[in-house]
Amino acid sequence: MYAEIITIGDELLIGQTINSNAAWMGQELNKIGIDVYQVSTISDDKNHIVDALKDALKRTELVLITGGLGPTRDDITKYTLAEYFNSPLVRNENVYTQVEKMLKKRSIPMNDLNRKQAEVPEKARIFINYAGTAPAMWFELEGKVVIAMPGVPYEMKELMTKQIFPSISQHFKTPVIIHRTILTYGTFEAKLAEILTDFEEQLPSEIKLAYLPTEGVIKLRLSGRGAREEKIVKMIDGEIEKLYKIIPGYIFGEQDDSLEKIIGVLLKKKGETLSTAESCTGGLIAHRITAVPGSSDYFIGSVIAYSNLIKEKHLGVDPGSIDEFGAVSRQVVEQMAQGVRERFSAGYSIATSGIAGPAGGTAEKPVGTVWIAVADKKGIYSRKYTFGNNRLRNIRRSTLAGLNLLRQYIKGEMDHI
Amino acid sequence: MYAEIITIGDELLIGQTINSNAAWMGQELNKIGIDVYQVSTISDDKNHIVDALKDALKRTELVLITGGLGPTRDDITKYTLAEYFNSPLVRNENVYTQVEKMLKKRSIPMNDLNRKQAEVPEKARIFINYAGTAPAMWFELEGKVVIAMPGVPYEMKELMTKQIFPSISQHFKTPVIIHRTILTYGTFEAKLAEILTDFEEQLPSEIKLAYLPTEGVIKLRLSGRGAREEKIVKMIDGEIEKLYKIIPGYIFGEQDDSLEKIIGVLLKKKGETLSTAESCTGGLIAHRITAVPGSSDYFIGSVIAYSNLIKEKHLGVDPGSIDEFGAVSRQVVEQMAQGVRERFSAGYSIATSGIAGPAGGTAEKPVGTVWIAVADKKGIYSRKYTFGNNRLRNIRRSTLAGLNLLRQYIKGEMDHI
Repeated sequence: MYAEIITIGDELLIGQTINSNAAWMGQELNKIGIDVYQVSTISDDKNHIVDALKDALKRTELVLITGGLGPTRDDITKYTLAEYFNSPLVRNENVYTQVEKMLKKRSIPMNDLNRKQAEVPEKARIFINYAGTAPAMWFELEGKVVIAMPGVPYEMKELMTKQIFPSISQHFKTPVIIHRTILTYGTFEAKLAEILTDFEEQLPSEIKLAYLPTEGVIKLRLSGRGAREEKIVKMIDGEIEKLYKIIPGYIFGEQDDSLEKIIGVLLKKKGETLSTAESCTGGLIAHRITAVPGSSDYFIGSVIAYSNLIKEKHLGVDPGSIDEFGAVSRQVVEQMAQGVRERFSAGYSIATSGIAGPAGGTAEKPVGTVWIAVADKKGIYSRKYTFGNNRLRNIRRSTLAGLNLLRQYIKGEMDHI
Repeated sequence: MYAEIITIGDELLIGQTINSNAAWMGQELNKIGIDVYQVSTISDDKNHIVDALKDALKRTELVLITGGLGPTRDDITKYTLAEYFNSPLVRNENVYTQVEKMLKKRSIPMNDLNRKQAEVPEKARIFINYAGTAPAMWFELEGKVVIAMPGVPYEMKELMTKQIFPSISQHFKTPVIIHRTILTYGTFEAKLAEILTDFEEQLPSEIKLAYLPTEGVIKLRLSGRGAREEKIVKMIDGEIEKLYKIIPGYIFGEQDDSLEKIIGVLLKKKGETLSTAESCTGGLIAHRITAVPGSSDYFIGSVIAYSNLIKEKHLGVDPGSIDEFGAVSRQVVEQMAQGVRERFSAGYSIATSGIAGPAGGTAEKPVGTVWIAVADKKGIYSRKYTFGNNRLRNIRRSTLAGLNLLRQYIKGEMDHI
């Protein structure tokens, strides 16, 4: 089954806002078995809205509209749809109560503009927007469905997830679709696809595998489609079990996990603590670790040692090692890791030293050369990486590589490194 | 004058890729005086491409198409357009040379698929793609122009900036439009608009002011349109001068500046160095500072002191101060700033201590309470901020506030804080 998306807003056309709503809706519609045929981005203009809607309804039986439902004069989507569906506006008491509640929460007085938010087209089915004031509206005409939602991303997402997707699934009797996502790190999409060729071929026809590459992390999404939920769940569970056997060294988590969240879980389970000694990553490893709520339970702190003097004075790196091997070397990065672990009395530590660029490269150690070490009281492990030419990308890739190395070291999975 | 954009690609419809190309094109077209009427995102399907193109040509005289120009089987844009414009494919030697060059650079052997990249519609004007293999194509029909470009963002941007925008300006005789962007930090859009009411009213009709809010930073873009470039430049310069007089405390840079770049420029000019002592920002200030190329010239390093013990042992904070005033206090954050400056022998320092959340808040110091201090050898300045409930947003807002405070302190602009 196909749907179309119409996103309304001048800010999208002038490029002030990137259309992330359409991407999110496309992803989520796929999950309930609906393909997006076209996305049309148009201006807050009555004739334009009507033309785009007419065109979309010629092509599909479900049209999702976002934007133009605010209280200001340029928001005309509701009035345009009321006229198009020949459905006069009437006051809806449930919406009014919600508008009152939101205004009170934001300490904004009720006025005529806000009061109008509670007027909705008579024939529309109304979904209360618990995160804002503009409700979503569901219109039906000649077997086709048109749904209008506010354009504020978190309001739209909340409405769709909790109310609109279930209603669409019920109305169009879409099949049951179950998804599970496996997160991998450490290889490229093409390589992974090669390794998983046989796995993909043996998949039952109900199960599909999708590769979703992001920066460094490749997500593998298994989707199962069928009539009976329990059966699909069981089939997917079985396939996931196989994946864990084929690529154990690449899988680090599922669904919404991240390397730093997993590290936190592992450290908490062990009752251990962590510190970092960062040169080329400049604090990004510490930032990612501390972005996780509750990280103060296991994260003690870091020394960011950009200058060699700090490496010597505050991490105890031997000046002779820097002279002999250079700051970007196994010897120095291991001393950094040991130094911060001992001085900060931490159970685990990670250290980075590399040439992020654009300057600082040599023939022997070009831009992109990075050493990373992880240590605990029992030992130390270090490894050299070779990244590219872009400074920011080198910093990010070093951070991800470091987080993954640390995760593997804490888990004791050093045979996979 | 209006244009339409058609972005082709299944990855956009399933939401795997966010349509950032359309936003960039919208922004850049505005700069040469062209408004985008509609953006249509469609699949790699011949009939769909033809339908969308016909619809767009009914509405506008310029259609920009991106995507579907790669060498693989699902890339059908070129073949579809060749048929639509009744223009058989012929080999273009300049394109062939470029394809050869790119393949050699990437160590890929020439094959039939790559060779086909050099075949282009006979009637099309060709723009060589110096960043890739697929050239851009310019078609004309009944006074209207259709331009097809590759969808890879940096290839598209390079082609548009260097070759296509100049050709569009020349073909459609668009007016001269000059832009200058002023970057502000420290207030909200509504507040800025209020302060600038009189300024906006006195602007000559040739000059328009646009507010472009991003996270924390509000960009003010002045655009001037007219027949004579020198006259417009002079008018904009005059208006910018006025802005610097009206809101000197908010402006921190122009065009592509960032707070961390400006800090680097200021430190280099003074021959000074910097260190950070971060608690709630967890290394994000250091990361932003070190993301700037050449930052190793002035950035020495940091102590990220998440635990109180590190604040005491490695920054010299008095345990009595932590007991009496708490870690989130003026007393402690000032000692952190002094401590890192002295121990790291830095000219300047910045320190942060706050409650990022979700846990750790009290009635007296709720989640979002943050103290920031900046110091140099002459003195110290500290300030309390009150942000919100979201952990990651609190970390980011503290980082921006800290960078701005540091910038003002280095500049000696403390009367604006």
